[in-house]
Formats: sequence, structure tokens, C-alpha cells
Amino acid sequence: MVRINGERLLDDLRTLREFGRVGPGVVRQALSDVDIESRHWLVERMGEAGLDARIDGLGTVIGRSRSDGKALLVGSHTDTQPTGGWLDGAMGVMYGLELARAFREHEETRDFALDVASWIDEEGAFMGCLGSLAFCDMVEPESLADATGPGGARLGDVLREAGFEGRPWTRFEPGRYAGYLEAHIEQGPYLEEEEKRIGVVTSIVGIRSYQIAFKGEQNHAGTTPMPRRRDAATALIELAHRINRRFPERTGPKSVWTIGQIDVFPGAPSIVPGSAWMNVQFRDGEESRLDDLSALLHELVTEADAGGEVEVSIRRGNERVVAAAMDEGFQGHLARAAEVHAPGAWMRMPSAAGHDAQVIARCMPSAMLFVPSIDGISHAFEEDTAEEDVVLGCQVFADAAATILSEQRG
Amino acid sequence: MVRINGERLLDDLRTLREFGRVGPGVVRQALSDVDIESRHWLVERMGEAGLDARIDGLGTVIGRSRSDGKALLVGSHTDTQPTGGWLDGAMGVMYGLELARAFREHEETRDFALDVASWIDEEGAFMGCLGSLAFCDMVEPESLADATGPGGARLGDVLREAGFEGRPWTRFEPGRYAGYLEAHIEQGPYLEEEEKRIGVVTSIVGIRSYQIAFKGEQNHAGTTPMPRRRDAATALIELAHRINRRFPERTGPKSVWTIGQIDVFPGAPSIVPGSAWMNVQFRDGEESRLDDLSALLHELVTEADAGGEVEVSIRRGNERVVAAAMDEGFQGHLARAAEVHAPGAWMRMPSAAGHDAQVIARCMPSAMLFVPSIDGISHAFEEDTAEEDVVLGCQVFADAAATILSEQRG
Repeated sequence: MVRINGERLLDDLRTLREFGRVGPGVVRQALSDVDIESRHWLVERMGEAGLDARIDGLGTVIGRSRSDGKALLVGSHTDTQPTGGWLDGAMGVMYGLELARAFREHEETRDFALDVASWIDEEGAFMGCLGSLAFCDMVEPESLADATGPGGARLGDVLREAGFEGRPWTRFEPGRYAGYLEAHIEQGPYLEEEEKRIGVVTSIVGIRSYQIAFKGEQNHAGTTPMPRRRDAATALIELAHRINRRFPERTGPKSVWTIGQIDVFPGAPSIVPGSAWMNVQFRDGEESRLDDLSALLHELVTEADAGGEVEVSIRRGNERVVAAAMDEGFQGHLARAAEVHAPGAWMRMPSAAGHDAQVIARCMPSAMLFVPSIDGISHAFEEDTAEEDVVLGCQVFADAAATILSEQRG
Repeated sequence: MVRINGERLLDDLRTLREFGRVGPGVVRQALSDVDIESRHWLVERMGEAGLDARIDGLGTVIGRSRSDGKALLVGSHTDTQPTGGWLDGAMGVMYGLELARAFREHEETRDFALDVASWIDEEGAFMGCLGSLAFCDMVEPESLADATGPGGARLGDVLREAGFEGRPWTRFEPGRYAGYLEAHIEQGPYLEEEEKRIGVVTSIVGIRSYQIAFKGEQNHAGTTPMPRRRDAATALIELAHRINRRFPERTGPKSVWTIGQIDVFPGAPSIVPGSAWMNVQFRDGEESRLDDLSALLHELVTEADAGGEVEVSIRRGNERVVAAAMDEGFQGHLARAAEVHAPGAWMRMPSAAGHDAQVIARCMPSAMLFVPSIDGISHAFEEDTAEEDVVLGCQVFADAAATILSEQRG
């Protein structure tokens, strides 16, 4: 019934890419100067699409429909990893923008209520999924101001400098919403391996993140005999090795774990490191398995600390993403639309990556659509998706949004 | 026969500490602004002591005696580690300055020829022992300009900005020198453990340093299944673990090895690291043992690289310090002077740290004197030595220098 404009969609995506473009990729961390510029640009585009758009008190861009009746909220995030790809969450936000325009252009959908959001800081420069957590009232305002980001910047200061401080936050409004839809690139290899073009997400993994700190004694690398050393780097290496060796005892077939950050201080060839730290993150679709892995990690830290030479401590990171199931009804709408536009070329699948949808699923029905990632590459400059898949995904997404809303209107 | 002035010595040490002082410690890496300031100050002090002093084309400060006859060269280094102690090499340079003054004040030593040096970059901001290597003609000028230091600065640029570029280098002059003497803090626990106040160094360890690089594939930490990962951090952790486990097979009782630098890129909790690197350094008094350890390290790197997922490569670092024996005759002069001023409270010992003396020992007779380090702490802000030991060491050093020179004059 509703037809999206593929070229218009791709043009917007290319324009957005120019904010922070580096080669084929993008560097646009949440609330960086270039990210803020891109948010002002997005507000303009939403206004042209007939939405009542603004940047809220945390940096989330929200475009509200002026139509009555139950609204469908669609969106994703336009911030990126420190070295990110050009589609990631940006594609889902541009889908929302294109849907708002396409709905206005078609008789049947003209007065459907569609709100579009670009949630702030999904990638966790300050706090992962900050915008969607705030929407669901799952963060304490007090704690927020002191959250720190790249270079140790305080969130409160960054918001003040951006001029967002004091503005209201975008929050869940009981009664307004039929639910939430999010589109995203898969970021993994499965659709490509199965030769499918559309993924209908059944559930999203939970994420746990821990920072482990090591405190030893800085000393001279020549004159400190091995038995007398309290080497923080050696303690880190041994614990990291044990984590990699022991985790498979309790992981499932789809569990993943990552040591993505390691720092050693002061970091000189002739100095026995006095302190060190690393970040350990793991993901699974089942919270109970995450609990098991968390318990194992704490055991291993306690063992390492018991050694005595080096103090080892652990604290929970900012990731607060729990595993979430996607709404069955919405999955049906997405599946039917996929079968119309890509017969036999779609599949149901879990999401191994975290998304705002898994936060929002805790306050209203939510679902997600995936398009394939070439070679499964993501969170890297080389990330990409075939243009025809980007356009196909948007059309499927538009049909599903339209049938969900027409169902609401009975 | 010659008496040094302890208060004058301590005053100079305290003044020098103010260049780059941080709490009890010092941050004064070679050719940093504050290091350059301190070198101009040192040239003035040497001039007041009657020496013909200047900064050479690499930053080494050399103060030449105007007296005839064989000269004794004494010195050490005034640059520090990124976070260094206040005595380290600085004490040995101030000993030289005090000797030059004390010799002028005593009839018997007034016309003895004593040259004093502060060798540039012993700590290896650009190249370890650069000043002493240049003195012994052991560096190629071409290679030097491109050597990089803190923040990637090129040595050539830094020397130009400092105004040193084009000046002659301080080089060994056949016929001029009777030999070289260096005083230094022990930087280790042995003198304190043996309740001795003076150490006469018998030999200095050799140092090998290697940089090991890991090249994998950067990817998403949620959507990349464990079997598909090419995780540079995991490869680094496993090789580091194997080094720590296998090295004891070939180390001796006094061997030490250190992984002092680890970097993982891009360094984000949700990204599988695409590249990483670490520095591995080891030391021993026997070159043959260093060769064994180097061979083992290369074996382990080859094994790790053979795994295939991650490319592992190794290259030799800038450390070029070979094990060196100290001159027997000079050791005798130091031992006799120690027995006079600290009867029974001195010992002969090897040096587990690298020093300019082990470079200079390759072109002329050299020897070293140690004073105790409190708790054996060094290359850290907390490094310290009892004032009475600093003063005692200088007196012993002065007597030995005087008897060596009077012997020369027959």
C-alpha cells in the first residue's frame, strides 16, 4: 500500500555519513561536536517530513507525529563506535525518516501517527543505551551528570556546552504508543550464510560488562628479582588467560566474550608495571547463563586476588542490557511483509548485538528487522550492506509499520 | 687527601630535582623542555667549577678539564624515566660536578684532569644510552634523525628546535683518557639486605628488548561467533602467558624478563581488537643466556604466528646494551677507598641495571660505584637513598678518582 523512495533514503544516508566520515567509515561518538551537528541536521529533516522535532535534554532527537490515535514509535541511533561503520544504527533512523515522508504521500497512511527517534549514546560513550534507558525511566538523573565519556569529559558538562541541559527528556507516555519498531544491519554473518535478505528478530542477547583492576608495585625492570615482583601486567595476563580457558565450561553455542580493552601503567620497557586494567564483556540470549558466567568471573578474580602479590578488583560496567524477547504480533507483521517483498528470502533469528529495542521492550511491545552485513563485518570502517538490501529492508519495514497501525485503528 | 663538600653536593641535587619535580619524584625525559632547561643550568654549574662546558649535537653535556695529562672521564645521566626518581643517574652527574670543584680546592689534586659528562637519553626516550653509544661511535648518524620519541616526535626535529643540530658530538679521543668512572644508586635491594653502604660493580647485565605485533581482524564483539574471530588481544594474552611459563626453562638465577608495555586497538568494550602489540625485555650477565632466551622467544612467536588467525611478528628494539665486565684495576681503587671510609660496609656486586658505563667499557677501562636504594625502589617517584650514603659514596668516589689519576701521573 505504501511505497518508500529508495533514492531519497540512500541520499539521506550518504548525507549523514559526511558527519564524521573517515574513508568508508564514520567517527561520530555520542555528543562529539560532529554528532551534535548531525542531530541539528536531523531535526531539520524531520521538520521537512512534517514531524514536530527537537533535541531533548540528553541529546536524543525525537520527531513527533501531529496525527491523533495510537502512535508507532520507530527509530535507532545515529552515534557510532570510536571507529564505526556508516550504516549501523544510522540506517534505522533514516528508515524512520523515510517512513514519515512516505506515509504522508499515501492516502491510506497519511493520518497514521508515526514518531521517529534517534536515541542518544546507544554505543556507550557515556552510558550504553542512555536514550532508551531514560525513555523507560531506567536511569537515575543524579548518577547521570557524573558519568564520564571520551577523555574523561563529564556528561553534565557536555550537555551544558551543547545547550541541551535543562530540556525535558523524551519519556514513555502511557496510552500514546502501539509499540516500537527498530531496523538495523545484522552486524553478523548469518543472513549472508543462509542467503537471506531480511531477518525478523525473535530475541536480543543480554550483555554484561566488567572492569577488572590490578594494583601491584611499580619498580625497576632490571634490578627487581622475579620473586620480589608485584607485576600488575603479569597478573592481568594470567587472569585473562584463565578467563579464556575456563569460560567454555559455562558458555552456550551462541555465547561470546571479549577482552576489548587492556591498559598497563606506566607502560615503559624498563619498568615493572605497577597497575593495569582490562574490560571483560560477555553476551548470551539467556540471563541465567549470563549469571553463571558472571559468577565464574568473580570466582576467577577472587582466586587471582588471593595470590596476594597483586590486588585484583572487579566492578560492573555501564552496560545494563538484559536479554529481551521481541513481540510475537509485531514479528508476524514483519514476517508477512518480508514474504511479500522477498518470498523465501527471509528468516527469523536472534540478535547477538545489543539494541535500544531490548531496553524499550521492557515498557512496550517491540520488534526488530535486520538486513545483511557484507562479510558480517561491523563496528569497523569496512562495514557495508548492498544498496538493494537497504532499500528492500525499508519497504518491508514500511509495510509492517502500516499494517500494525491500521490494525490499531481497527 | 681530597675532601668533598656534602652540603654543596646535596644542594645541587635538590636544585636539579626542581627541573620536572612531581611530588618526591621527577618527570624529565631526555630532550623534553624541562630536560633542556636543566642542561643549560648544568653547563653554568660546570663553568663555575672551572670546566670548559657545552651541550653537544645530541644533547649530551660535556665539561672538559683545562689541565694537561691523562684525563679521567666521570659522569652518568640526568634524564629520567617517564615517571622517575630524583637520584637515579642525576646523583652520578652531581658527583662529577662536586669532584671537579673539590679537586680544585686541594693542592694535590688541583691540576688533575677530570672531565664530567651527562650522557643524553640513557633511559631511552629515543634510543637507550644514545650519548654513550655516540661517544663510542656505535650509532649511525643517518639512522638517528628518524628515531622517534614520546608522542612520535622525530629526534632530528627535536634537536633542531633545541638549537643543538649541527654541533659536534662528544666522541672518544684516543690518548686523552685514563678511563671512565660512574656512580649510581643501586636501584635494587641487595646492598640494603647485606647491610652494606657501598657497592663496587664487577659487571653489568646485557639487555635485549623486542616489540611483538599482532594483526587480526577488528569486528563486532556481539555478532562475531568465537570460532570466526581473529582477536589480536587474545593472541597477545596467550603468547604473553606462554613466555611467562616457558622462560624459566632457560633463565639463570639472576635473569629477569618484563612485559612492560601492552597496547590493544581500537580498545573498546564492544569491539574484537584488530591489532595489538607488546614489548618484551630481558636481562642477564651472560650474553650466551640472552641468546638462548632470544631464540626461545622467536620460537614462541613462530608457533603463535603458525596458528594463522592472527599474524604475529617480532622486531628487535632499540636497546643495544651488551653485558660488560668492569676494569679490575679501577675496581681495586674503588674497593680501597671504600674500605677507608666504610670499613667492612662495602661489597662487590654485579649490576642488574643497564648503565652508560657498559657502553663506554667497550672503548676504555670503566668502573662503577653504587650506593643503597631504600627498599630497593627505583624508576618510581618513591625512589630514595639516605643522605649520609649519598655523601659517603661521593667521598669514596673522589678518593678512587684521585688515586687513579695520581697513578697515571706516576
